[in-house]
Parts: sequence; C-alpha cells; structure tokens
Amino acid sequence: MKPILTGEVLIEVPFHDVDAMGVAWHGHYVKYLEIARTAMMRRVGLDFKQMQDWGVIWPVVVCNLKYIRPLSYGQTVRVKAELLEYQARLRITYLLTDAASGQRVNKAETIQLAVDSGTGELLFECPPMLTEAMAKANV
Amino acid sequence: MKPILTGEVLIEVPFHDVDAMGVAWHGHYVKYLEIARTAMMRRVGLDFKQMQDWGVIWPVVVCNLKYIRPLSYGQTVRVKAELLEYQARLRITYLLTDAASGQRVNKAETIQLAVDSGTGELLFECPPMLTEAMAKANV
Amino acid sequence: MKPILTGEVLIEVPFHDVDAMGVAWHGHYVKYLEIARTAMMRRVGLDFKQMQDWGVIWPVVVCNLKYIRPLSYGQTVRVKAELLEYQARLRITYLLTDAASGQRVNKAETIQLAVDSGTGELLFECPPMLTEAMAKANV
Amino acid sequence: MKPILTGEVLIEVPFHDVDAMGVAWHGHYVKYLEIARTAMMRRVGLDFKQMQDWGVIWPVVVCNLKYIRPLSYGQTVRVKAELLEYQARLRITYLLTDAASGQRVNKAETIQLAVDSGTGELLFECPPMLTEAMAKANV
Repeated sequence: MKPILTGEVLIEVPFHDVDAMGVAWHGHYVKYLEIARTAMMRRVGLDFKQMQDWGVIWPVVVCNLKYIRPLSYGQTVRVKAELLEYQARLRITYLLTDAASGQRVNKAETIQLAVDSGTGELLFECPPMLTEAMAKANV
Repeated sequence: MKPILTGEVLIEVPFHDVDAMGVAWHGHYVKYLEIARTAMMRRVGLDFKQMQDWGVIWPVVVCNLKYIRPLSYGQTVRVKAELLEYQARLRITYLLTDAASGQRVNKAETIQLAVDSGTGELLFECPPMLTEAMAKANV
Repeated sequence: MKPILTGEVLIEVPFHDVDAMGVAWHGHYVKYLEIARTAMMRRVGLDFKQMQDWGVIWPVVVCNLKYIRPLSYGQTVRVKAELLEYQARLRITYLLTDAASGQRVNKAETIQLAVDSGTGELLFECPPMLTEAMAKANV
Repeated sequence: MKPILTGEVLIEVPFHDVDAMGVAWHGHYVKYLEIARTAMMRRVGLDFKQMQDWGVIWPVVVCNLKYIRPLSYGQTVRVKAELLEYQARLRITYLLTDAASGQRVNKAETIQLAVDSGTGELLFECPPMLTEAMAKANV
C-alpha cells in the first residue's frame, strides 16, 4: 500500500535507554515511534498541541513491535513512519534501520482513534481539520 | 489454550507514568508487562539474574499491545501473565484489568527467544535449566 | 529537626531501571522519591488528585540526590520520606536504605512550592486545606 | 570559575516527557543533563564506551537540580554543560535555557567519581587516559 504521508527521524540511543544486557530496553522503542510519528504529522501542520486545541485527541489503541536486531549505546537509528489510513483512525507503520548500514532493526505499527477530548467519546468520522490539513498538504 | 504457568501482580499507576492527557502513557505498559512476567517466572524459581548466570538471555522479539480502556493516576491495575509456550521461545499473553471493577484495560503478548549470552547466537532448543525448573515445579 | 510527618515504602528495583553498568540508573531514583512522598502525604489524606481539585499544584523546585551505594536488579530499597516544612513550601528529606541490611543507599531532598493551578501564580501562604489536613491528622 | 570544557545540546521536549500538569516531569531533566554531559565529553574524544573499555566507570554520586521555569511539550531547551573539575572526580554544572527566549529554566550540578570497573573500587587519582585526552585537546 502506498503511504499517504511519510516522515523520518534519526535517533541516537542514549545511555539511559540501555539495559543490563547492553542494548536499548525494548520498551523504549515506543518513544522512538512517537518521535517519528510526531515529525510525520507536523509535515502537514498537525501536532498534539493543535489537535488538543481543536478538542480532538488520538489515543493509541494498538502498538505492535517486532524486534529484528538489538540497538546499542550510541548507535543511530533511522525511524521511518508511514501513514496508511487517516479517516476515523490513524494507522501508521514504522521501519527502524541502522543509520550506518541500513540493516533492519525493528518493524512496528500503531493504530490511534479520534476521541472528543470534551466528552471522551469516539469520533466515527474524520475530524474536519485533519481532512483539510491533508488536502492543503496535497496528500 | 491452557496456560503452562500464570502469574499476577497489582500495580498502582504512579504520577510519573501519567501523560498530558491525564492517563498512563501507552509506552509505560511495557514495564507493567515485564513486572508481571518476572513475577510469573519467579514462581518456578527462574529470574533474569539466574538465567544470565546460566549464560542464557531472553530478548523480547515481539511485543503487541491492545489498549481497551485508559488508566488514570492512582488506579490499581491487575496484570495477569500466562505462559503459553516455553521451548525455544517464551510466548506469554497478558490481561490487564482494573483491580476494583474487573473491567478489561489491555491485552498484550510477548515472544522471547533464548540467546547464548556468550556467543549472541540463538538457541534452538530449550535451555535444560528451564526444562528442569518447569518439571520440578510440576508444570 | 523532628519531622512533621513521615512515610515509608519498599521498592524492588525492576529490570527496566537497570543500566548498562548493572545498577539502577541514577535518574530513576527521582521516581522512588515520588512514590515515598505520595505515600507520606496520603497518610494525612492528601493526594495529587485532591490538591488539583482544590486548585493547588506543588511543582518540585529543588531536587538534590546523594548516591552512597548502588542498587542492583531485584534489590529491595526502603525509601523513608520526612516532611520538615509545609507552609508556603513543602520541604521533604529522604533516606534510602537496603531493606535487607539497612545499609544507606541514598540521601535526598525535595522542595515544592504551592502554585494556583488557575493563574499559575505562587501561593505565599499555606493552602487552608493543607493546614486543616495537618491539624486533623494531629501533626 | 572558568570551565575546563563546555558542551551544548538542544533538546525538544517530547510528548512522553510531559506529565499530567502539562509540563516536563522533573525527573526527566536528569536525562537532559546526561545528553549534554555526553556531548561535552565527546568533544575531547571521551565516551562511556571508551571509558568502559579502559576499565573506568564514572558513577554519579551527586545530582542537584534547581527548577526555575517549567518546560512544555514541543519547547526546545538549550542545555549547556561546563566541566569544573576532572581529577579524581568530574564536577559539571549545567544551565538550561529556553532556546527561543534565552530565559533560564534550570540550573544543575553533577559529581561523578572514577571507579575501577573490575574491582569496583574508587580510583583516587585521575585515570591517565583522561589526563591525556584533556592534554591532547589542549584543555
């Protein structure tokens, strides 16, 4: 499937993310996904802050991670996010590769639902500002 | 499938796990899974430290999370882990429920592979100490 | 100085807090302090949630830590908090000891100021609910 | 006191560092200090990995933080580290400022001691490789 939008960041594994096995602890990857997702959404002018001002929040309801190779302290990982759906839900896949060698490190996926931040209720249609932002950005 | 082994912990959501939306940030759940998994494995006398002394480590290769209800500050969540496979890999499923109401909060799964900590190579057979610990524990 | 109020918790160092040196990473201790502080304040019926409902928040403005002995995976640490001041600011000291041996692990101190959550302005007098909670608790 | 060495990084506050009060949780600043300290030490060719190969580790024994202004999601903070001593101990001070306005956000200090990673014993003299790295770097 051709992605609707993509984004990419480089992250260097900091000492405080490395566990007793000498590799980035698996739970920290969820942060790396979030940083890439944020960078991607900002490319069409959308950010958590702005969504919140609009009264829409996007809780993560699915987060799946597949670890292929470990990451060490100081290693730079390229995190590429791809938006595959953005109607009533955001579906994003991620590919993490070693920035130096291009070797695959991790594959992941997140699904987020649109929720009205006032009522806490699910929105079953795409929030108009998201549709407009996507249209303006010609994606 | 009947679980081979189960374990359960109660975790109270601390302030430092709560995000700007007022709920436990989704990445912190990976810690909750680890705490329940550790409690379960200790029931048959197995712990990270001991495994490491034996030269076996168990990196997580799959971690899938499905979020059903949010968790708030101070809420106590029951995390139940169930071991479904323990041969060349550990497959564990998790159910998180609100301790007070029993309502389902999250379902998750992890898969871990046995790796020789000296060579870094995958072990394709179950480490004998694991088989023995399971036999002794009569599971 | 005789403490106005004390609180104590036992915390077992989880795998995800241990760094590449095999000891609890120094930044994680800030979480341990928070857990002990929360337990202490709840003894007089005060909690973050309740304070927030009252329109008062208590940002930490000073956090000083002195590390005496390292903590390892699985080690249980006793964290004792002592409230030394509670007027316009909360001053709390902490002593972390190994639960098994009683050996000192860490000494710390935090200072928090009362802030009006509506205006974001400092409160120069003790919020009445705090005075009352302390009086009721006979401390 | 004139610093022996300085280093500086820009850090954008990620969503996962923001707490229920809408500001970066105070414990996360310890990570920001570590990132700046690492950048500074790398300027003279020293890094955790290399020190570890030499058999020297530098546990943090003091970490003092003074919070002046809160940090919000998306805000970029400049973290400047200054090395004030490097003989048997590393003493480093930090100044965090808002990258846009220059306003002061936090002042901090860490002290680290040199420890032989084999014996776990304190080194009372400066490890030669540190002296040499500093000399080569003409600091």
